[in-house]
Amino acid sequence: MTNETVRDALRAFVGERDWAQFHSPENLAKSVSIEAAELLECFQWSSDADPDRVRDELADVLTYCLLLADRLGEDPDSIVLEKLARTREKYPVEKAHGRSTKYDQL
Amino acid sequence: MTNETVRDALRAFVGERDWAQFHSPENLAKSVSIEAAELLECFQWSSDADPDRVRDELADVLTYCLLLADRLGEDPDSIVLEKLARTREKYPVEKAHGRSTKYDQL
Amino acid sequence: MTNETVRDALRAFVGERDWAQFHSPENLAKSVSIEAAELLECFQWSSDADPDRVRDELADVLTYCLLLADRLGEDPDSIVLEKLARTREKYPVEKAHGRSTKYDQL
Amino acid sequence: MTNETVRDALRAFVGERDWAQFHSPENLAKSVSIEAAELLECFQWSSDADPDRVRDELADVLTYCLLLADRLGEDPDSIVLEKLARTREKYPVEKAHGRSTKYDQL
Repeated sequence: MTNETVRDALRAFVGERDWAQFHSPENLAKSVSIEAAELLECFQWSSDADPDRVRDELADVLTYCLLLADRLGEDPDSIVLEKLARTREKYPVEKAHGRSTKYDQL
Repeated sequence: MTNETVRDALRAFVGERDWAQFHSPENLAKSVSIEAAELLECFQWSSDADPDRVRDELADVLTYCLLLADRLGEDPDSIVLEKLARTREKYPVEKAHGRSTKYDQL
Repeated sequence: MTNETVRDALRAFVGERDWAQFHSPENLAKSVSIEAAELLECFQWSSDADPDRVRDELADVLTYCLLLADRLGEDPDSIVLEKLARTREKYPVEKAHGRSTKYDQL
Repeated sequence: MTNETVRDALRAFVGERDWAQFHSPENLAKSVSIEAAELLECFQWSSDADPDRVRDELADVLTYCLLLADRLGEDPDSIVLEKLARTREKYPVEKAHGRSTKYDQL
């Protein structure tokens, strides 16, 4: 499966329903936050969560992320890899190994 | 580019830093919410946002989503497509066309 | 200290800076989510958090909540008590005692 | 009405249900984020929101904020006013007037 398959399926889903009118970058960013909180809700009272529910909510966060990327004309894989390159520099292995400390306090 | 490329790059990044110990599903879910709010912050006072900043924050949300998917043994594309199939049923074209109403009020 | 003191201090702060123009209910709701995530960030990798930082971030969430309440013409204490009355009914003591289960699954 | 009334009502509600065991600072911080997103959901597709629903969701965010403050032994009004004093310094009237710019870019 390639990203294009997913992107095209999402575009068709949105197009058939004429929903692009609601999908401003701002509304999609709000939607990412809303779905992220539903994912977090799986862990509200315990670190044990129902895997099916987590998968379901994660899918919703990813869906809005992909819709936003497409709206912005960005390739999801590329922006993740570009950011990773910068994060590698902020967290050099020799400093960050085995530590969850934020880069500005390393 | 395929998803495996991104997944392997993320695994190498985490492995080199010995960070898997911090990446419980719960911590990753918190991280998705935290980064989603940074994405939302691009739009805090205006629907106009700096595209570079949005891309950067979106990359962070996606990164934690991919780390969580990998931790759960799920393929990101597959769970998005599976969820989309269910969402199609909840929002039939003839009912949902041009409307942002939630499915339980359609 | 009474709520009026806090409300008046917040109104003066906003008024002096001419910031009411930015404080639409929607922008304040986004701000509550953004600050809530900064509070959550205190606990991102551990359930142990720096108490000073938690207090600081909690103050920010509360501040935007109070600004939103004032914008809506609502008294914060009253809406909390009204909601509590309804929550009491959804979670009767005999059913909810010692359980974190959501009301629709009790 | 004073804050003590609300605090005591919340304490009684929690005590009767034996829920303090679930109310670690971390769980309450997660709950604040989760409820903040439900507040945001009122504005997901439009800046117009149903006032009753907004009031209801705002009450939930406030409730978890007050539970967290009580758990930390903090007085909500005091921490808001203390933070406000510091925010006044970060945003001097002459610099911040009529601008939504973040303090580090003023």
